[in-house]
Amino acid sequence: MKHYEIVIVGGGPAGVACALSAKNTYPDKNIVLIRKEPTPMIPCGIPYVFSTLNEVSDNILPDTPLIANNIEVINDEVVGRANHTIVLSNSEEIAFEKLVVATGSKAVMPNIEGTEKENVFLVRKDKEYLNNLKTCIQKSKKIIILGGGYIGVEVADELAKAKKDVTIVEMMDVLLPTMDAEFGSKVKEIIEKEGGKAITGKSVKKILGNGKVSGVELNDGSKISCDLLIVSCGYKPNIDLAEKFGITFEEGKGILVDAYLRTSEKNIFAIGDCAAKYDFFTGEYSNIMLASTAMAEGRLVGSNLYSIKVVRQYPGVLGSFSTKIGATAFAVSGITEKRAKARSLDYTVGIAKAVDRHPGKLPGASEVTVKLIFSTYSHTLMGAQIMGGDSVGEMINIMSVMILNKMTDIDITNLQIGTHPLLTASPIAYPIINATVDAIKKWYKYQLA
Amino acid sequence: MKHYEIVIVGGGPAGVACALSAKNTYPDKNIVLIRKEPTPMIPCGIPYVFSTLNEVSDNILPDTPLIANNIEVINDEVVGRANHTIVLSNSEEIAFEKLVVATGSKAVMPNIEGTEKENVFLVRKDKEYLNNLKTCIQKSKKIIILGGGYIGVEVADELAKAKKDVTIVEMMDVLLPTMDAEFGSKVKEIIEKEGGKAITGKSVKKILGNGKVSGVELNDGSKISCDLLIVSCGYKPNIDLAEKFGITFEEGKGILVDAYLRTSEKNIFAIGDCAAKYDFFTGEYSNIMLASTAMAEGRLVGSNLYSIKVVRQYPGVLGSFSTKIGATAFAVSGITEKRAKARSLDYTVGIAKAVDRHPGKLPGASEVTVKLIFSTYSHTLMGAQIMGGDSVGEMINIMSVMILNKMTDIDITNLQIGTHPLLTASPIAYPIINATVDAIKKWYKYQLA
Repeated sequence: MKHYEIVIVGGGPAGVACALSAKNTYPDKNIVLIRKEPTPMIPCGIPYVFSTLNEVSDNILPDTPLIANNIEVINDEVVGRANHTIVLSNSEEIAFEKLVVATGSKAVMPNIEGTEKENVFLVRKDKEYLNNLKTCIQKSKKIIILGGGYIGVEVADELAKAKKDVTIVEMMDVLLPTMDAEFGSKVKEIIEKEGGKAITGKSVKKILGNGKVSGVELNDGSKISCDLLIVSCGYKPNIDLAEKFGITFEEGKGILVDAYLRTSEKNIFAIGDCAAKYDFFTGEYSNIMLASTAMAEGRLVGSNLYSIKVVRQYPGVLGSFSTKIGATAFAVSGITEKRAKARSLDYTVGIAKAVDRHPGKLPGASEVTVKLIFSTYSHTLMGAQIMGGDSVGEMINIMSVMILNKMTDIDITNLQIGTHPLLTASPIAYPIINATVDAIKKWYKYQLA
Repeated sequence: MKHYEIVIVGGGPAGVACALSAKNTYPDKNIVLIRKEPTPMIPCGIPYVFSTLNEVSDNILPDTPLIANNIEVINDEVVGRANHTIVLSNSEEIAFEKLVVATGSKAVMPNIEGTEKENVFLVRKDKEYLNNLKTCIQKSKKIIILGGGYIGVEVADELAKAKKDVTIVEMMDVLLPTMDAEFGSKVKEIIEKEGGKAITGKSVKKILGNGKVSGVELNDGSKISCDLLIVSCGYKPNIDLAEKFGITFEEGKGILVDAYLRTSEKNIFAIGDCAAKYDFFTGEYSNIMLASTAMAEGRLVGSNLYSIKVVRQYPGVLGSFSTKIGATAFAVSGITEKRAKARSLDYTVGIAKAVDRHPGKLPGASEVTVKLIFSTYSHTLMGAQIMGGDSVGEMINIMSVMILNKMTDIDITNLQIGTHPLLTASPIAYPIINATVDAIKKWYKYQLA
């Protein structure tokens, strides 16, 4: 029987981050990462294999950091466990001291008629599956995407750019429903400008076709034809192994963990999409599964496998996420106005727009819109949304750091923000500051009244 | 005699930011901004008037926010003051309740022989002066820039792009001496690739020429010819008005102020480059004059003119600054390794490199290098330097916010950082996190030893 001190199951970003962190912290332990997929995909790169990247294989998560750190990799499926031993599909047993479950999430197939038909696809994180999907897309003319969340709109953007006839069908009233409606409306506008279509506020009742998909029937009885259907209705924690391991989990929520991602068994940890998540502001279960959270968990567990070296004040899921549709980047961190309402948070909104170069005649300039959600009474920043040029991808992280540090309006306006004509908005127009000032103006008015 | 409740002297970014903040806080007060230059320049945009922008007038600081907020503007020079009255150059008197001095800084002409010769220029923030300089540059073939600080290298980059024969002469051993040497070396490499030249570690002894500049003589006796010389040897606080107003100042340091930017007289404030600055880490006088600091000061004073509404824990000058030379952006915030050594700070360095898209085959990818300076014992982040693609301009602000919040290695590795294939590095390679991990690895090694 092989023996490894540290065994990580799952080859996605959470598993890799945890393995690297474990190697840094415990350089003398031998570590193995066991994964079912011999060539794991970069999860958030998947939408780009359909057009921007030439090949699905351009999106492989590289093994270079694992190799450079002497972390062994076994490409096999884990099928069971007994005490300090796990069992592979070939019946081989591997002994461990510490076990980390990082088995990710699975694409959800909704319970509607016709999902078994030919040319109905999920967006799976599987290279062969995606290769086949890419080939079928290339042969198809008319494609429907079921679900207008971020994967759905990213794939639609890719297909529209590749001149496919593409239609998104989203049940909610707006696209990108994790952000406030004004951002989703902008996404819709961009996709329509690219030649795509988006139907919102309607659900799919039935998938039509004789063997192969030929269209969908909506809940209002109308029908749309297609020769390929991509279902992108979310993901759920993959708890298959938890079941086999006998550790506690909750269906749809994930493997239950404490603030240090320890499961019901002391020497078994769960990280990333397969571990249950809690909301940053209310502590409720959260269904937000993002690399930003998974990475923080992976690093933490890697450092704390044998004893708690890195003390953590568990913050819950902030939900820091960014995307780009057409030439416009979108990002969110923390609470949106929609969620603030749904969760009964007393909030004040601050909004600002700015051009992200100064003077605006400089090359690369585009308009940025920032929307901040503050706590009305405590003045703490609780959420940020932004859209604009590529710099949005890092601006959201400025705001994530602000939220995590519980910064208030005053802390933010006291900040010293670096600006440069060729790189950012002008210091006077800097939108994160000015959105804060917009909220402050509301409070001043209230005081004066 | 005219009467304004709030009088701001100086039309640069600090004055404008203060005027807008004052209007938000005290909407019923009447506010005037008095400026010497009828058409103030965007200070950090000045280097780009020489090539990237068509006209010097493309770099005018717009009056739009002042007009939109009903802030009056007087284009005139303030020449004196008596009690609650200031005097303009036309002898007109203006009464004030609160006075803000925001007169900025002046380009320094070093004390060397020949500075009076024709075609010897400073980089002044004056539209007419810059128009004339631009015309003279267009007529010149061989240009020397005296000083390789950020203005010097930005102007050199512009002139090299415009195919001028340009040579920087910098006294220190590296270009961009506000950053560590490896960053300055990269700047030199870029400028040389563009066809420019850079001589470091040598000073100019004498400016040569018969009436008009014909070259310079260096301290090693060698001579270089030119037909135009741009002197960019730093700026000093403009304290001309402080002298006339009778408020306390220190030559070369600026107008003395308390944590709320109040001068020796209760109703007179000083903000921006003309106000004395203190170092963020040691409280010593600082000679760093940046928009990032001036803006924070302007906003604070605007809110606190009549009483302290916005309480501030005075942080000192962080020195958040960014630039772009060729296609590479450079930025710094807080302490560099060089300054840590000079100020006897016990520090640990963490370094990471990453490609700022993932997978790296996606369009727009470039390599980013992050260098962090931590306190060895307290593990607090004290400084950050970065070079790479355009996203560097906002990444430095993530790190500024981290430093201002006194975040430690653990706080940083616990962060939830949003990433996206088309916008940022991969979550596993994210360089701010990985530079932190690089420092942590050094500490682990020390613990194990």
